[in-house]
Amino acid sequence: MLEKLKREVCAANLELVARGVVIYTWGNVSGIDREKGLIVIKPSGVDYDGMSADDMVVVDLHTGETVEGKWRPSSDTKTHLEIYREFPEVGGVTHTHSVNAVAYAQAGIDIPALGTTHADYFYGDIPCTRELTKDEVESDYELNTGKVIVETLHKRKIDPLAVPGIVVKNHGPFSWGKDPAASVYHAVVMEKVAEMDLKTLLLNPNANMNQYILDKHYFRKHGSNAYYGQEGKK
Amino acid sequence: MLEKLKREVCAANLELVARGVVIYTWGNVSGIDREKGLIVIKPSGVDYDGMSADDMVVVDLHTGETVEGKWRPSSDTKTHLEIYREFPEVGGVTHTHSVNAVAYAQAGIDIPALGTTHADYFYGDIPCTRELTKDEVESDYELNTGKVIVETLHKRKIDPLAVPGIVVKNHGPFSWGKDPAASVYHAVVMEKVAEMDLKTLLLNPNANMNQYILDKHYFRKHGSNAYYGQEGKK
Amino acid sequence: MLEKLKREVCAANLELVARGVVIYTWGNVSGIDREKGLIVIKPSGVDYDGMSADDMVVVDLHTGETVEGKWRPSSDTKTHLEIYREFPEVGGVTHTHSVNAVAYAQAGIDIPALGTTHADYFYGDIPCTRELTKDEVESDYELNTGKVIVETLHKRKIDPLAVPGIVVKNHGPFSWGKDPAASVYHAVVMEKVAEMDLKTLLLNPNANMNQYILDKHYFRKHGSNAYYGQEGKK
Amino acid sequence: MLEKLKREVCAANLELVARGVVIYTWGNVSGIDREKGLIVIKPSGVDYDGMSADDMVVVDLHTGETVEGKWRPSSDTKTHLEIYREFPEVGGVTHTHSVNAVAYAQAGIDIPALGTTHADYFYGDIPCTRELTKDEVESDYELNTGKVIVETLHKRKIDPLAVPGIVVKNHGPFSWGKDPAASVYHAVVMEKVAEMDLKTLLLNPNANMNQYILDKHYFRKHGSNAYYGQEGKK
Repeated sequence: MLEKLKREVCAANLELVARGVVIYTWGNVSGIDREKGLIVIKPSGVDYDGMSADDMVVVDLHTGETVEGKWRPSSDTKTHLEIYREFPEVGGVTHTHSVNAVAYAQAGIDIPALGTTHADYFYGDIPCTRELTKDEVESDYELNTGKVIVETLHKRKIDPLAVPGIVVKNHGPFSWGKDPAASVYHAVVMEKVAEMDLKTLLLNPNANMNQYILDKHYFRKHGSNAYYGQEGKK
Repeated sequence: MLEKLKREVCAANLELVARGVVIYTWGNVSGIDREKGLIVIKPSGVDYDGMSADDMVVVDLHTGETVEGKWRPSSDTKTHLEIYREFPEVGGVTHTHSVNAVAYAQAGIDIPALGTTHADYFYGDIPCTRELTKDEVESDYELNTGKVIVETLHKRKIDPLAVPGIVVKNHGPFSWGKDPAASVYHAVVMEKVAEMDLKTLLLNPNANMNQYILDKHYFRKHGSNAYYGQEGKK
Repeated sequence: MLEKLKREVCAANLELVARGVVIYTWGNVSGIDREKGLIVIKPSGVDYDGMSADDMVVVDLHTGETVEGKWRPSSDTKTHLEIYREFPEVGGVTHTHSVNAVAYAQAGIDIPALGTTHADYFYGDIPCTRELTKDEVESDYELNTGKVIVETLHKRKIDPLAVPGIVVKNHGPFSWGKDPAASVYHAVVMEKVAEMDLKTLLLNPNANMNQYILDKHYFRKHGSNAYYGQEGKK
Repeated sequence: MLEKLKREVCAANLELVARGVVIYTWGNVSGIDREKGLIVIKPSGVDYDGMSADDMVVVDLHTGETVEGKWRPSSDTKTHLEIYREFPEVGGVTHTHSVNAVAYAQAGIDIPALGTTHADYFYGDIPCTRELTKDEVESDYELNTGKVIVETLHKRKIDPLAVPGIVVKNHGPFSWGKDPAASVYHAVVMEKVAEMDLKTLLLNPNANMNQYILDKHYFRKHGSNAYYGQEGKK
């Protein structure tokens, strides 16, 4: 079942390795079939080497039960599910431990919007969640990780497709997009802008960007007035 | 038309990837045929993978109209055009989002001339432009980006071939040269010296270089008394 | 003799190069056959290029004498032996000069547990040993390096399999695991978390992690209640 | 003439690229035939791509005249010659613009001996020269670069084979060894320890190493009591 989505999700997982944002088994990508209410996700702790679409696991969006697959799904599956359930516009979710984004997660601070590289993909600072409480960690950790992501976006009134990523305090980056490939793309961009920002702040701790530059770059690539790329051209 | 220039421009764009200064579609190179008054530039948002000379777009230097090409030209085309129009000695222009040069752009400070690596190619600090105003960003952003580059060079009385690069505040590096390949070369050098300088300033915030070392290294490679390389040898 | 272990140890040594944590001859991995009381270790100062299982050296756990091999064993052999003798649960030991872990060793500070990447493999800070005394260095340096590793773990009441690595002051990282491959894995993780932590501390010198997050992540991967990966699945 | 030495010098130059310490034409290696009083050096400004032994240039040690070769010798030839003339034990010289060593050169500070990686190859801090005077730069720059290297070693009573490298203020690293390959090896080590030290100092500005650790590590690899590697074994 869902053979096309499995191939997409598998390819997206392998892209994480090719882009240098994961080593070993330190990442996972999923995709969703909204009609069927099923997600496809990487298995837990399985090596990327030799991984194929057949290794992907199908999980029910609402029950969290494994519907098909020879492996256990990623241990972060409940986090993915929570994001999908809350944001119907999300089609793919990615989690990595990429170094620079993790540094922001561990530091407990937002990845600030300091330049146009950021503005091209993220309409505003990439938020860092609050710390989970002891109860949240000990009761249903992965679900609560999803919940704190959702809570952070809601509290800050962030449209998840406008800011398609977050860093979870003491943990690392989660990102999403219209499909699995887009969520990986955003994971790579987040890592890159995290590196740019860290270096920027070493040069100038007061660096910042005006809102109108953020507006300009974001909206030249997104929305009805976009003119970047080849949309509507061919 | 302009088949040779298209091949040069395409090769220069691919060189950006090979040198590790761009990922995805985050860069663009153009070249000019001064006699015909036409530039050749990378299409907007098209992947480097499988890109060929046929994908390049021909644009009129003065009108900015696309003369030939199956794609839209780079969204930064107007910036390139402004540089070509103002500086007749420029034969190629490159724009990237390379990490260390972007860090200087985001920090809003010049890339200082601190050593001979810099002095071999850039005769003085690589300037950072002022911030564009709200009006400049909202009216004709890419053209105004070109204008602020030109303004910065003029204000500082910089010969564009002596300092063949700049960082645009909150954005990133632009570089140029006698042809497309030279503009890419300068983009790579700028990224490298930006990395060197950032690390230098972490070790010694007061680092600097005497003018006479800058003179020596620059002029042993450039101008009528140059003795580096094989010019006039074979 | 010990052909299978030699192949494992050789492969583990070559993995160090593949993972980018050693250059030249700057690292060594060993493995142990507890029943026979013999260890297999990389030869001293021999290049990784073209290295094969035949080049591995067999050394007696108790006497330190070479039992088989055409080369001298690693100059760090006595350090490995001391770790094996003191901790019967250790099956493989790795030593590298990976840059970020060395930075912590040279700075003389622990690699702090600041995030879940760390918590997934190391149950607490990765300790830095005290400095060896002049006598310790001049008398039996490599043995005393092993002794200070053991001393540090005992003093801090650290279970060596729960924190499978350490940095030796002014020197660099040693790591271990149930077999040679696991010790290499821990060497790679240590290098990665050292890089993450250095960058974290540049962003926020007061960064830290609550004990309950450390507990959660460590125990979801280790011990009888682990649920990460595919243990007990297939 | 000197075909074997040309092959060695060419291979050593290409090794610089393979080890990631040079890009473009930013480095040069030479070797010497002491009996004939001739050195072999890379040509000036020629690309590494496709370079062969035939491209190497033979220069007279005392007159500095080109004896054989289809190209001009490296513009840094006089610096190499001065090192060879002053230190008869030197058999190969390397110059690069590797990023971390350049950062120390630009910062104008020594690369401090903070750990055993350093101590294994450099018996003490790697010195940074004083700045050249205006006269020295304007009169015979490359020769004076050699002279300030020699002056620095003499003033600090440094045995050039015990500390086989230096950084020239505002310029970059020079290294040497018993042959061309050894000089490249030292260039790579210098770059690596420069990176380690920069990161160490970010973690702990007061980091240092006791003399007895430096003694131990240096002398376990060098001199009559060395026991690292396979010397005298096979």
